[in-house]
Amino acid sequence: MTTATALNKLVVIGVGLIGGSFALALRKAGLVKHITGLGRSPGNMQRAVELGVIDEIATDAATAMHNADLVFLAMPVGQTAAILEHIAPYLHANTLITDAGSTKRDVVAAARHYLSMQSRHHFVPGHPIAGAEHSGVQAAQTDLYNNKHVILTPFQETDGKAVERIRRLWQACGANVSLMPADEHDRVLAATSHLPHILAFTLMNQLQHSTNQPESLLRFAGSGFRDFTRIASSSPEMWRDICLANREALLEQIEAYQRELNDLKVLLQKQDSDALKQSFSRARNLREDWLKNQD
Amino acid sequence: MTTATALNKLVVIGVGLIGGSFALALRKAGLVKHITGLGRSPGNMQRAVELGVIDEIATDAATAMHNADLVFLAMPVGQTAAILEHIAPYLHANTLITDAGSTKRDVVAAARHYLSMQSRHHFVPGHPIAGAEHSGVQAAQTDLYNNKHVILTPFQETDGKAVERIRRLWQACGANVSLMPADEHDRVLAATSHLPHILAFTLMNQLQHSTNQPESLLRFAGSGFRDFTRIASSSPEMWRDICLANREALLEQIEAYQRELNDLKVLLQKQDSDALKQSFSRARNLREDWLKNQD
Repeated sequence: MTTATALNKLVVIGVGLIGGSFALALRKAGLVKHITGLGRSPGNMQRAVELGVIDEIATDAATAMHNADLVFLAMPVGQTAAILEHIAPYLHANTLITDAGSTKRDVVAAARHYLSMQSRHHFVPGHPIAGAEHSGVQAAQTDLYNNKHVILTPFQETDGKAVERIRRLWQACGANVSLMPADEHDRVLAATSHLPHILAFTLMNQLQHSTNQPESLLRFAGSGFRDFTRIASSSPEMWRDICLANREALLEQIEAYQRELNDLKVLLQKQDSDALKQSFSRARNLREDWLKNQD
Repeated sequence: MTTATALNKLVVIGVGLIGGSFALALRKAGLVKHITGLGRSPGNMQRAVELGVIDEIATDAATAMHNADLVFLAMPVGQTAAILEHIAPYLHANTLITDAGSTKRDVVAAARHYLSMQSRHHFVPGHPIAGAEHSGVQAAQTDLYNNKHVILTPFQETDGKAVERIRRLWQACGANVSLMPADEHDRVLAATSHLPHILAFTLMNQLQHSTNQPESLLRFAGSGFRDFTRIASSSPEMWRDICLANREALLEQIEAYQRELNDLKVLLQKQDSDALKQSFSRARNLREDWLKNQD
């Protein structure tokens, strides 16, 4: 692993948990001299300065982009197109751009639509897979990305050197970096993240619809229920954006899940004791193997 | 709350996490003089003695039931009928009986089938809602039931005084005791526990069936996935028993869930941005309200 080259100026757009933690980790690694933040909420940006996450609040995109070595897009993924359109006129020839959006095909499409060919050479779409139960810059942590996966999805126009530079920066944050095409990323995440969120939201909605007093049901819900539904506490705006952006892959996953659930229902209707136990055992074994491989 | 009357002799059938923790809690509360264990695995029973969870291993049901004040059934719920049949001939006129099975209608049916009217007066079906990621007597803890819910489902023949005695013993373990009919218990648990388990098992099976290399998908699964699927690591035997015992209520829940999931799929197909966000918001709000009410 070659050492990452230090950045003179990093611009973080959307200084919350994801953007703030990236800034903190690069600063700790000694890889950035000056960090400029750009964001919608003056209160949050002020806190970002007070917490030492950023050095300066940019007043507008033109000023922010001036002499920027890297622009990190960490606002909600639904705003990516609008932000790219907004900053495109001010991007310098050599400014690197990367993002942290949970879907990647739509980000690539937005880049192709709004960025010049020159800027596309320097755009490396990315997705750090790091939990986000809490949000806002006050939740940012230096070690958020330590031992976490980061997936980069360079597209045809992306320059190989740009990919290498972004890879090394994430590695300096402690992350394990993988490369894959954007459509593969979106299929993988549809299966392991987007579908589970849909299933958890749906369980809460079913409880709501199944009785006039869901509280009386929930009173007896235990720790299994609490963990299963944890992701149903995620941001509705963010998950609406993700579901719409990754609609096709997610619909395929939902339909495959509907078939799988129906198969299990049939086993239960037939009271097929052996097949039920086999089904649960296979599920359990796959999960236990996965947990072992994580160590 | 009246103080619970101390037991001279408690018999625990199935000395694992659930039975062992009950024994430890009652002993700590000073409410039991002598604890006899009965179980299938000699190794586990020996550990139960070494850990001080029980005082003595019973060699047979007749000896175990002799002078027992309370028999606590804590083996897998699928064995309830067989165990009741086995111990019924040796039950004394005043021996209390309770259980910890995750389903209650089948337990009541088994009691009606195998117990004399005299014993049914002293049988109080129960279900402590306490997590069980780990199993076996070595996982037993004195405070497992502290602040946990215990549901008792007395049936027509159950004597009110027997219910009161069992209630006080659970309260002495720190539990919050509720009473409801067995069929209501089974409906509530189908919604908040049995269905989520089915959904988690099904997600793992879908991943298995969606690709030849589920590991390559799972490599990028994050903490949300880990928590969502935690209950898919539960015992296949136990969950087969629970699903079969509570088949009707569970099938109703699965079908309601299928409808709810289909409704959400339609919103996504129509790209109904507002309705998607509303749906996720309702789900999130119900969960957040529930969490607040737990404090």
